[in-house]
Amino acid sequence: MGLQIPVGSRIRKSPFHGALLAHGLTHATVYNHMLMPASFGDPGAEYEALVERVSLWDVACERQVEVVGPDAFELVQYVSARDMAGCAVGRVRYAPICDHEGTLLNDPMILKLAEDRFWFSIADSDLLLWIRGVGAERGLDCRVFEPDASPLGVQGPRADDTMAALLGEWVRDVPFFSFVEVEHEGIPFLLCRSGWSGQGGFELFLTDGSRGRALWDAVWAAGEPFGIHPGGPTLNERIESGLFSYRADCAGEATPLEVGLERFLSLDREDDFVGKAALLAERERGPARRLVTVLLSGKRLPATSEHPWPASGPSGDLVGEVRVASWSPQHDSNIALALVSSDVAGGGFTTFTPSGEELQATHLNFFGE
Amino acid sequence: MGLQIPVGSRIRKSPFHGALLAHGLTHATVYNHMLMPASFGDPGAEYEALVERVSLWDVACERQVEVVGPDAFELVQYVSARDMAGCAVGRVRYAPICDHEGTLLNDPMILKLAEDRFWFSIADSDLLLWIRGVGAERGLDCRVFEPDASPLGVQGPRADDTMAALLGEWVRDVPFFSFVEVEHEGIPFLLCRSGWSGQGGFELFLTDGSRGRALWDAVWAAGEPFGIHPGGPTLNERIESGLFSYRADCAGEATPLEVGLERFLSLDREDDFVGKAALLAERERGPARRLVTVLLSGKRLPATSEHPWPASGPSGDLVGEVRVASWSPQHDSNIALALVSSDVAGGGFTTFTPSGEELQATHLNFFGE
Repeated sequence: MGLQIPVGSRIRKSPFHGALLAHGLTHATVYNHMLMPASFGDPGAEYEALVERVSLWDVACERQVEVVGPDAFELVQYVSARDMAGCAVGRVRYAPICDHEGTLLNDPMILKLAEDRFWFSIADSDLLLWIRGVGAERGLDCRVFEPDASPLGVQGPRADDTMAALLGEWVRDVPFFSFVEVEHEGIPFLLCRSGWSGQGGFELFLTDGSRGRALWDAVWAAGEPFGIHPGGPTLNERIESGLFSYRADCAGEATPLEVGLERFLSLDREDDFVGKAALLAERERGPARRLVTVLLSGKRLPATSEHPWPASGPSGDLVGEVRVASWSPQHDSNIALALVSSDVAGGGFTTFTPSGEELQATHLNFFGE
Repeated sequence: MGLQIPVGSRIRKSPFHGALLAHGLTHATVYNHMLMPASFGDPGAEYEALVERVSLWDVACERQVEVVGPDAFELVQYVSARDMAGCAVGRVRYAPICDHEGTLLNDPMILKLAEDRFWFSIADSDLLLWIRGVGAERGLDCRVFEPDASPLGVQGPRADDTMAALLGEWVRDVPFFSFVEVEHEGIPFLLCRSGWSGQGGFELFLTDGSRGRALWDAVWAAGEPFGIHPGGPTLNERIESGLFSYRADCAGEATPLEVGLERFLSLDREDDFVGKAALLAERERGPARRLVTVLLSGKRLPATSEHPWPASGPSGDLVGEVRVASWSPQHDSNIALALVSSDVAGGGFTTFTPSGEELQATHLNFFGE
């Protein structure tokens, strides 16, 4: 007995919306105030297509925040907890963004389009207004706005074959986290080797929102010989692949050190950036909580459940939360991500499902290690 | 054939979540990253309860942003486009918040809890991070955070009877946009005369999230003699009552002058505030678009539809959008809000539903006038 979601004006539709409906979308969520496909009715088939063939995802809800102008680099560098110096035009860096207290605000990919022009490809928070506010208060000379740019994900082991069939063999040579501008039959997009799965593939940043259906249909046709399937970000695959989901994994209330993003921080840079002092102090004392991957006991969990679940330590005390849990074909076990006290993060704990079932969690790894 | 929404960890659940499920919630949306009830299966009965009796709403998704500390007033006054000077403790002001370019970011109620302590009760955008960022960049000495505060709406002509039955006759004397601290059987909340309907009533800001079910059940029991019904913000009633919905009505991309909020702005204040220069310039030249209420031709529309719809002028040119539309019992007609070019805002236009039906729009009023 699921809940239905009305899709009124407060929830924005992507340029690929018509294609989603035509392909039989059954489940959708809201991400950056936008409708995001969750399932087309068969999560098992969607997982299989992603890890064995190729999957087509409307991820237009990964909105872009463009920063452009004489002071664009200064603003980007100041808000990014990762050093952006030395990033070449045409390349991408994954960069945690923190507030002045060191709390993670978002974890975008930053695309460098020109020396004075950047896109933040954002997770689920209103980063645009924050960057604009910080830039304005600092009197920096640049514009911060949302461009017409909507990513379409092509993910899976046959993603290269699909895109080569569409655009030519050259696409196989696009390096990871690099992008090139493409115009295919009048449809303009950036072709970027990236995507929120561990199966490889591309994101196509459509830059003419009126051509969403045309781009979807062209990729679909190219992928049919390779078994393309409609899908979306896939919970069990992304846990297996160690991909972080801001907000799902930390409720928007954690530091990058707690959630295992330390290797993407440049805490020892000489220049100042937002949150630097707080993050240095936290590194010194050690994070209070840790995000961990755990195996869970119990019978096979469904593809999605109502989360989070409370986590209890040996003496029954609340030690944190299981944030997401699902059945993992790779581990032939239930798998979960939990944000728990550092005291218990290296060991096991107990959790309780909404129906009251008690499950045992066994440490698999510290997230990000 | 509705879309189902999975309710994983990225979508936060309110303290009243269990009560919603127990009362048969069927439709839900996402607001401030939180699950918000949309319907319990019978929109007609929900409208009727709201305008004839009393309706109980989980509006915990109206999150609170607390600003507290020595410089709290300075920050609140600087980010608010409405003058907050002279607002007494225990009172509320509805205040548009704009960015440095004069674009509306949110339209909260601001509750003054003490001379140095305020709550912004926000619409659907991440205002917390923006206020925190602006305050930090200005070096102001105050904390900006989300308190444990979750509004529960009691709306409708029998709301006073319901709350008097629960708390005593004194509640009838609470003035509009005033609040008092209450503790009822150990459940702490602010009782505020406010709410997002034109039917009158209260919002109870629960300040202990562990007592959500207790508060819901207590209000429910008190309201049963008056025909209380579970519900939520009601599209047709709020259009009839002239209540603005940020994001639904303007996609988060309009100015307060365009959407008819001028009477809540203090543009002629002497002190500076965010967006002042841009708003003064816009007032001088006149807004490019206007939000208008229109009657729509055609057969009775359902309680909710997929929106927005394109709006066309006399020569077939795109002049804006119908943002929301629904059947209005009060007008015995379809009714809508449209954001259209100022050129056509005073007259009629044509719109097209997703199924291709052409409807005629007739001007009823400029929103906010």
